[in-house]
Parts: sequence; C-alpha cells; structure tokens
Amino acid sequence: MTTLVIGANGQIGKQFCELAKQSGTPIKAMIRSEEQAAWFQERGIQTVVGDLEGDFEHAFEGCDQVVFTAGSGPHTGPDKTLMIDLFGAIRAADIASQHGLSRYIMVSAIRAEKPLEAPEKMRPYMTAKFAADAHLRHSDVSYVILKPGRLTDDAPTHKFASTVEEAGDNQISRANVAYALLRVVQTPGLINQEVTLLDGQRPIDALL
Amino acid sequence: MTTLVIGANGQIGKQFCELAKQSGTPIKAMIRSEEQAAWFQERGIQTVVGDLEGDFEHAFEGCDQVVFTAGSGPHTGPDKTLMIDLFGAIRAADIASQHGLSRYIMVSAIRAEKPLEAPEKMRPYMTAKFAADAHLRHSDVSYVILKPGRLTDDAPTHKFASTVEEAGDNQISRANVAYALLRVVQTPGLINQEVTLLDGQRPIDALL
Repeated sequence: MTTLVIGANGQIGKQFCELAKQSGTPIKAMIRSEEQAAWFQERGIQTVVGDLEGDFEHAFEGCDQVVFTAGSGPHTGPDKTLMIDLFGAIRAADIASQHGLSRYIMVSAIRAEKPLEAPEKMRPYMTAKFAADAHLRHSDVSYVILKPGRLTDDAPTHKFASTVEEAGDNQISRANVAYALLRVVQTPGLINQEVTLLDGQRPIDALL
Repeated sequence: MTTLVIGANGQIGKQFCELAKQSGTPIKAMIRSEEQAAWFQERGIQTVVGDLEGDFEHAFEGCDQVVFTAGSGPHTGPDKTLMIDLFGAIRAADIASQHGLSRYIMVSAIRAEKPLEAPEKMRPYMTAKFAADAHLRHSDVSYVILKPGRLTDDAPTHKFASTVEEAGDNQISRANVAYALLRVVQTPGLINQEVTLLDGQRPIDALL
C-alpha cells in the first residue's frame, strides 16, 4: 500500500514524509525537480519528479492512495492558487479516479466550505479550496478531507480538537497536521470523511 | 418561462437583454447596483439587484432558468476570476439546483476543458472556467454550456461555426454570442449540450 505524496517538499509534506519513513509506511514523494531530491534521498525516501502544472500522471504508477498537501499558500498570487490549489488538486483527483486509487487524502483548510465567511483577502484562496474539495466529493474516488486551522510552527503535541469552541483557538501546528495525516494514511478503512483539525487535548483517533 | 440573466450589465449581457426584450422573451436582469438600472428601465427590462460576491439568491424568485454571462474577464486579476467566474458560477448552480430551475445556460470559453493548452497567462482564467463548467456538469440541473472563441465587437452576422477548422479562425462577435444565447433560451428542450461558438457560415440551429 504505497502512498503518493503530492506537495512532499512543502512544510507539512516534509514532516509527513519523515514520519512515514520512520514508521515504515511506504510512500513516494513527488517533487518538482531533481534539485529537491537530496533531502529525501538522505532519509531513504523514494522520490518521483512531477510537475503539478504540467505532467505528473506517471507519478501515480504503483501507488494505491494519494496525499495532496501541495499548496501555493494563501500568500502567493491567486494565479498560482488557481493552478496549484485548484487545478492541480482537480487533475490529481481525475488521475486517481482513472488509476482506480483507493483513497485521496486532501489537506484543505478550516471552513473552506464557506469562502464568503473568510476575511475578504482570504476569499479567493478559500474559494479554490472549496472548489477543489467539491470536485473531490463529486469524483468516484474515496476521500478524506482534513481541514486544518491557521498553521503554526509549534512543536507537535499529538493532541487535537475538531471545533474552535473545543480548541479555544483556531490554530494547529504543521507537525500535528503531519501526524494526523500519517494516522489517516495508516487507516485505510477511513473513507468519505471531513475532519477539522486544531490543536487540542484529544488523541487523533478520537477525531477520525 | 422567465430567465434570470446573471451578468446582465456586461457586454454580452446587455446585447442579450436587448434581443430578448425585442423578441418578447421574459427575462429578469440581475445588476450589481441601482445605478446600473437606468439602461434597463429605459428599455422596459425588469431588473433585480444582486451581489454575485454576496447575496443574490433572492434574484432567482419567479425564474425558471438562468443565463450566466458574468465574467471578470481574462484581463482582471485572478482574485476576481476566482470570486466571479468560479465561485459566483458555482453558487449560481447550487441555488439553481435548490430552486429546481429547469436549465442553467453558461457562457464559458472555447477549450475551457483544456486549460493547460491555453497560453500561460490565460491558464488561471481557463482553469476557473474549467472548474465552474465541471461543477455545473456534476450538479443536478440541466445545462447548456456555450464556448465562444475570442470575443470581438464586430457586427452580428447570425452565422456560426463550431470548430476552428470550420471557421478558419478562433473569434466570434459578442453580438453573435448574444444571438446564440437567445436561441438557446428559446429552445427549452436543449439540455446537457456543450457548443463551441465561432463566427462562421451556418445558422445557429445547425449547431444546437
């Protein structure tokens, strides 16, 4: 059961790949260019070069599920948001469907289902996440959509909350998101779920 | 059979509204603000104020089908492309579904199904049209997707082609698009069709 990691070279992606490697969970890290390969090779992590704005279908070969954690991020231009967060995610879902993958695990964003309730400058980004999630739900691939809150670089606590009320805040560390991703990847029976992820007090299994 | 026109104040929208009024085809023109109303009132065209980036569900009351010809255009910023061409179109489809409308007639763009084949600077715009069209296809509303080529301000010829090979070019006048829209609106049995529209030599009915 090999998992393709799209966005492996991102901040969450790298932490996830490291956790997966340490736990013996088979992954293939998709990177944009050979220059990004060294970090993964040093850790014994398999890589494949694929261009999310070009050709990347070949990266799916031999993979059973896919993690999508690529993101132009809310602070790049909305043209990249359209090409990466929206179109990249949609094409990955279409390829996953064509290849008969068992699951698509999406890293989305908290409240992506309500873009108009986001602050105005965040709305184009939230709209891209909204539309990508909607496309995935409508596809015939089983999915898990993780919706982290505002991302921080805090140390992992491995403790979670699923609502702002429960958490008392709207943030989560990238390390905790990476850990939650690992648990989802290791739980193949978990399908067609959407989970808001915040730093909190509960073990991840209580949320899944 | 009243048709809601979203994007009525646009260049195609205004020409369509005028043709519809002249032919006795019942329409309701959605405009962004009362300041846009005078042009329509002078011509006896009913208007409703609705904000495509805010509240516009009330505009659907009493309407049986909807034309979506709103567009930020390929030359505005991609943030507006995300909010108008993508999210506005998606929300309109969701509202049309909730209200049980009989049809959603979308003005898309030629080759919107292949954003990566567009020139690089056009790709974010094409991606928004691609994803909006995909959402409409997946919705439970019957649809017609019109895919005009490069828009010109030439005089109407009422003659069309449906491929670049047939047309010998990739352009179409906004006046011809407005005329094609009118014929689609007047043909309720036409559903779940996608039609590329270019200036050409054939009557519109030969393409529908």
